[in-house]
Amino acid sequence: MEFDTIAAISTPLGEGGIAIIRVSGDRAIQVIDSIFKGRKKLSTVDSHTIHYGRIVDKNGETVDEVLVTVMKSPRTFTREDVVEVNCHGGVIAVKKVLDVILDQDVRLAEPGEFTKRAFLNGRIDLTQAEAVIDLIRSKTDRAMALAMKQVEGKLSSKIKEIRQSLLEVLAHIEVTIDYPEHDVESVTHDFLLEKVNHAKKEIERLLAHASQGKILREGLSTAIIGRPNVGKSSLLNALIRENRAIVTDIPGTTRDIIEEYVNIGGIPLKLIDTAGIRETEDIVEKIGVERSRKALEEADLILFVLNYNESLSEEDKQLIALVKNLNVILIVNKTDLPQKLNIEEIKETFPDTPIIFTSIKEEEGIDDLENAITHLFFEGKIESDDLTYISNSRHISLLKKAKNSLEEAIQSTEQWLPIDMVAIDLKNAWDQLGEIIGDSVSEDLIDQIFSQFCVGK
Amino acid sequence: MEFDTIAAISTPLGEGGIAIIRVSGDRAIQVIDSIFKGRKKLSTVDSHTIHYGRIVDKNGETVDEVLVTVMKSPRTFTREDVVEVNCHGGVIAVKKVLDVILDQDVRLAEPGEFTKRAFLNGRIDLTQAEAVIDLIRSKTDRAMALAMKQVEGKLSSKIKEIRQSLLEVLAHIEVTIDYPEHDVESVTHDFLLEKVNHAKKEIERLLAHASQGKILREGLSTAIIGRPNVGKSSLLNALIRENRAIVTDIPGTTRDIIEEYVNIGGIPLKLIDTAGIRETEDIVEKIGVERSRKALEEADLILFVLNYNESLSEEDKQLIALVKNLNVILIVNKTDLPQKLNIEEIKETFPDTPIIFTSIKEEEGIDDLENAITHLFFEGKIESDDLTYISNSRHISLLKKAKNSLEEAIQSTEQWLPIDMVAIDLKNAWDQLGEIIGDSVSEDLIDQIFSQFCVGK
Repeated sequence: MEFDTIAAISTPLGEGGIAIIRVSGDRAIQVIDSIFKGRKKLSTVDSHTIHYGRIVDKNGETVDEVLVTVMKSPRTFTREDVVEVNCHGGVIAVKKVLDVILDQDVRLAEPGEFTKRAFLNGRIDLTQAEAVIDLIRSKTDRAMALAMKQVEGKLSSKIKEIRQSLLEVLAHIEVTIDYPEHDVESVTHDFLLEKVNHAKKEIERLLAHASQGKILREGLSTAIIGRPNVGKSSLLNALIRENRAIVTDIPGTTRDIIEEYVNIGGIPLKLIDTAGIRETEDIVEKIGVERSRKALEEADLILFVLNYNESLSEEDKQLIALVKNLNVILIVNKTDLPQKLNIEEIKETFPDTPIIFTSIKEEEGIDDLENAITHLFFEGKIESDDLTYISNSRHISLLKKAKNSLEEAIQSTEQWLPIDMVAIDLKNAWDQLGEIIGDSVSEDLIDQIFSQFCVGK
Repeated sequence: MEFDTIAAISTPLGEGGIAIIRVSGDRAIQVIDSIFKGRKKLSTVDSHTIHYGRIVDKNGETVDEVLVTVMKSPRTFTREDVVEVNCHGGVIAVKKVLDVILDQDVRLAEPGEFTKRAFLNGRIDLTQAEAVIDLIRSKTDRAMALAMKQVEGKLSSKIKEIRQSLLEVLAHIEVTIDYPEHDVESVTHDFLLEKVNHAKKEIERLLAHASQGKILREGLSTAIIGRPNVGKSSLLNALIRENRAIVTDIPGTTRDIIEEYVNIGGIPLKLIDTAGIRETEDIVEKIGVERSRKALEEADLILFVLNYNESLSEEDKQLIALVKNLNVILIVNKTDLPQKLNIEEIKETFPDTPIIFTSIKEEEGIDDLENAITHLFFEGKIESDDLTYISNSRHISLLKKAKNSLEEAIQSTEQWLPIDMVAIDLKNAWDQLGEIIGDSVSEDLIDQIFSQFCVGK
């Protein structure tokens, strides 16, 4: 493929020691050469070497001291010539160097455009490309490990394996149709059922932990609720203190919207402020029962805090009504004080809900809570080295479609319907799986996927 | 000098395509080699080459895909062996790779420690080191150009030149003292006066624009005040719209404290919210006259907005009393409406204060305001290619001390006091100048200077 030459700042903007501007395309080396003053011309240097020098503007004034990395096609991120300019960190320095580069008739790269080229030039497939941004956005080690597997192509090879076996079946059918004189019909029938059932099972295996994969990738949105003074903020602080919180700005928005994640045994908990539920004490009064219920329903997990030292109040009962049948963990706090809460009553109201006893003041019970969360969503263990954690909604939806297609193929086969009808279903499954790895995707979808990337990647 | 091996994240934390971890010290290459899986062992590669591979943890699991740059002493930033690991951006990826590196008995670098080593190992002097952080923190192109000159050693060479000439004088005095039988006394006298006066003039030349240098480096803290509805927010928005605002988090603080800078012809205007003056309408009522006055006195510049379409109100007069004799630019806004304000009265009240007529609604007069600001602080032009813009308070204070020492030397000489007394003053000036470039500084001062750096630089 032929593309123009693009450039973008590839490090986050802000104060830092180093900032990198990445340039990719046929003219990359020539463009930087024309504004770089160093010991050698970049056009003469070896690939994968780094050179100290200065970037100068059109008046010959030094813009910045830099280290320039020259990487020649095809052993590069985009498979094109890539030059990376490492300049001083800080907002002005890096923007100024970028301006000088863009003055050389270089286009500013769109979000994700470098990775898009890596995909379009065939260095990585679509699942690998998608995993790159998952890796960057990952909130916990486990989520990152998951994304890393996908970057390394573990998911792709599984998908390719299934597709390969479907292709064999399709080839077999082709022969049967082309040479009806051969008595292969019954052989085909058994062979087909066995192969397609196997493929279906493989897909089911992939889908089995999809919801967990999604949680690792996107986080569990979690609301902490409870009456005043039951210890909601202490709980929040304890979780944050014991588990380094990650704060991220949501890209494309102002700095006002900030997401906070807490890492609970590898699960990213996104602590949400559902219409003020976390902060406002009397939620029902404030936003009304219906809206409160709705807001809570959007949470993946509700941590409902009760006081061990008080019996159930009217307010508690209102909250209980709100969260019943939602995904709740009950936290009975202040066990350091004398018991006044009727635990049996609670157990009857929430028969299948985990109840955790804590004294956040005495730092007791937090581990139990973390275990309960892990247990609730991962049956106690997260196997990040298992590649079956599909995490991306797009993949999940395509896998489900492929599974349906295979089911239809199996049904048709069992009903001895014409084999070319079966072939259509199989071809559909093959296409749907292909769409996951980007073998058959529309330009629109590609644009949409890469537009979610950050600039410079 | 001998140091241990240190590592730190050198790019700002946040979502981005690339993050860099810098490792410096004797063991840098060996340490990364032990956790890097690539085509070659890093111990065998040439200096200034870059290598694709994976960082693995102690279980052999891939932590991240990376590009590793190997730069061998002495042609490096610190003059030590330096390895830079370019990993995927994002918070988790880079922290995880850093953890794996720190597990190899590598110490986390302190803020500015790489630059400190560059200084202690003699690659750069102290003014150059200080300029590195100025470069990163600079808020406008001009401020950056200024810092760049200093990084390149323009200030150092000026200081060294002056010191050299003082050294010649001192040598001359030495001869006079050692060989009193030579009749050099009167020659020394004239030579000394000429040389020292010249050095003094050079220092004065450096100090001449120090206040401007300081403004470029640190920004002008600016308060916009005025009665309700005179157009304060429109002015603010107009300034921000026309001049890309730079928002920086103040390092070491929570994300609550944010500074906003607007670039006015190269001057960074720090728009301050002096105890709510920018937002609260009735400041006098809110915080009292005394505190308001105090808050306003801390601003370098006050933009006082009046309404062309209204005569002076009591509230205006209160504000006038507050800002009289401060550094004010008067903005008479809403000139698109009929005149009701008595301009003569204003001129009498503020005889030497620039008055700018604007209609922010019609986008008129903003340029005049920008010119007025430039004029007020830079007499109309900023010569960023002039190296005489000293910007750092430490340098300014030492230059003033050196100037005083030289003045005392001149006085003593003119009074024909004993020549060894003159020598003491000259030696003081020589030391004070030396302290600027770091030739004679205490360890404490060095620690203090570099502690203001960001981590990873």
